[in-house]
Amino acid sequence: MNLVKENKKKEIIKFFNDLPFNKMMGISLVSMGEGLAEMTVDYNLDLIGDKKTMVIHGGVVTTLLDAACGAAVMSAGVPKVPTATIDLRIDYLRSAKPEKQIRAKAECFRITESVAFVRATAHDGNDVVPVASACGAFTSPI
Amino acid sequence: MNLVKENKKKEIIKFFNDLPFNKMMGISLVSMGEGLAEMTVDYNLDLIGDKKTMVIHGGVVTTLLDAACGAAVMSAGVPKVPTATIDLRIDYLRSAKPEKQIRAKAECFRITESVAFVRATAHDGNDVVPVASACGAFTSPI
Amino acid sequence: MNLVKENKKKEIIKFFNDLPFNKMMGISLVSMGEGLAEMTVDYNLDLIGDKKTMVIHGGVVTTLLDAACGAAVMSAGVPKVPTATIDLRIDYLRSAKPEKQIRAKAECFRITESVAFVRATAHDGNDVVPVASACGAFTSPI
Amino acid sequence: MNLVKENKKKEIIKFFNDLPFNKMMGISLVSMGEGLAEMTVDYNLDLIGDKKTMVIHGGVVTTLLDAACGAAVMSAGVPKVPTATIDLRIDYLRSAKPEKQIRAKAECFRITESVAFVRATAHDGNDVVPVASACGAFTSPI
Repeated sequence: MNLVKENKKKEIIKFFNDLPFNKMMGISLVSMGEGLAEMTVDYNLDLIGDKKTMVIHGGVVTTLLDAACGAAVMSAGVPKVPTATIDLRIDYLRSAKPEKQIRAKAECFRITESVAFVRATAHDGNDVVPVASACGAFTSPI
Repeated sequence: MNLVKENKKKEIIKFFNDLPFNKMMGISLVSMGEGLAEMTVDYNLDLIGDKKTMVIHGGVVTTLLDAACGAAVMSAGVPKVPTATIDLRIDYLRSAKPEKQIRAKAECFRITESVAFVRATAHDGNDVVPVASACGAFTSPI
Repeated sequence: MNLVKENKKKEIIKFFNDLPFNKMMGISLVSMGEGLAEMTVDYNLDLIGDKKTMVIHGGVVTTLLDAACGAAVMSAGVPKVPTATIDLRIDYLRSAKPEKQIRAKAECFRITESVAFVRATAHDGNDVVPVASACGAFTSPI
Repeated sequence: MNLVKENKKKEIIKFFNDLPFNKMMGISLVSMGEGLAEMTVDYNLDLIGDKKTMVIHGGVVTTLLDAACGAAVMSAGVPKVPTATIDLRIDYLRSAKPEKQIRAKAECFRITESVAFVRATAHDGNDVVPVASACGAFTSPI
């Protein structure tokens, strides 16, 4: 990765990690490649979506997946403005386990003039079954 | 609506408005009918997803739509446990305007033994074009 | 509707009704407005997807909805080439009744520079519950 | 794979390959494992969706993906009746090349009491970029 790309990468990481909403949620962009991004969210009592089970709210997982997809798309091109989600589908495969950090890995696997296609999964540990998977279309970064 | 239903309705409203995550986000369940629910989220600097435009994060809109869909499904049946999102699609039609409250209206329009189908839209005022629309499948409340 | 639009409309109707695939399926574009389109498919033993129930194949309903969405998008702009489906979600609400014609109504409700958003429902008669609903993103016709 | 499974597999293959609609479309179930299925559709002038480009209709690809997903789900359990699609999302990544056979591979990767989750891709040759990808929820085969 050359210097221009390296700087762009740092800029995108800073953009995401400085966002007020990501700070409030505890969402971090921890890794980025070309068309790839990983983000984590730490377990936190403020994120709970069911007080009986202490499971975090599905919206946290969705937000993490959406954000990771956006970072993956941005890393795949040279967007002048943040790319925008056009549409997104989330499949909730099972509840996240309480107290576990959740990690989402996203991949932008196809870019056309109109849109960028991206997919992602969210895990809460070493389990075979992810917590959720996502796929979506974003505004093209090229 | 008879007393049993009235009590169930109050219980669901309390369930949503007491959730730590909804409190942190500023999400309220403001109205509920049979298979219908309305939720709002107030504009708040902590929810910002782009510091240049001051627009709130798309994840806030998604979370609001997901939560409103869940409430609509719960109000359509007599679930013993909170219904769970199976899958959800969000279409982001335009950016929400800064400083505006966002209101989501959800409708559970079809229930089978396996699943409940639901759709929703999110508005930020009197505009003709919603901010986002959603459709999804939830675990059946019957 | 002026002459240019009227001619464009005729052209789109001819385009769809002349397609080899639509002819084989028995799919017709029966009505078109600005951003609106209606298409039908006649019941036919060749379309059967389950020989025990004599219900037509889900793919027929999907194809009808996809085609109706495409026509609605084309009618909303002045596309030089046929618009293309970017992504599409279908919800199958119930089985279509054997021997019934199916009618899909599609509406292009939002156009941006990148994409056109469209939604549709498919009915098999006067019933309250549609057979299926759809929403999707298409290449922009403007 | 024991005898019961082997017989079930043959039964499912026969079910799909005997369907009138699949015969008309030229769709074949060519391979099946536990939770896995591959289906092909041969290029045919009757399937054309754009007479200028001679590209087959998107509905053909969708139907192939939907059918392959259904077979993958059936192969993952012991369903007494054919499983039904609850919802399906298709992403159209590029046009299929004229005259090429299209092959869809589907995988049922998660089964719950309510639903089975499945994903699939469709290719038209050795290319890196698939023609389309799909993910969906089906009625549970268990």
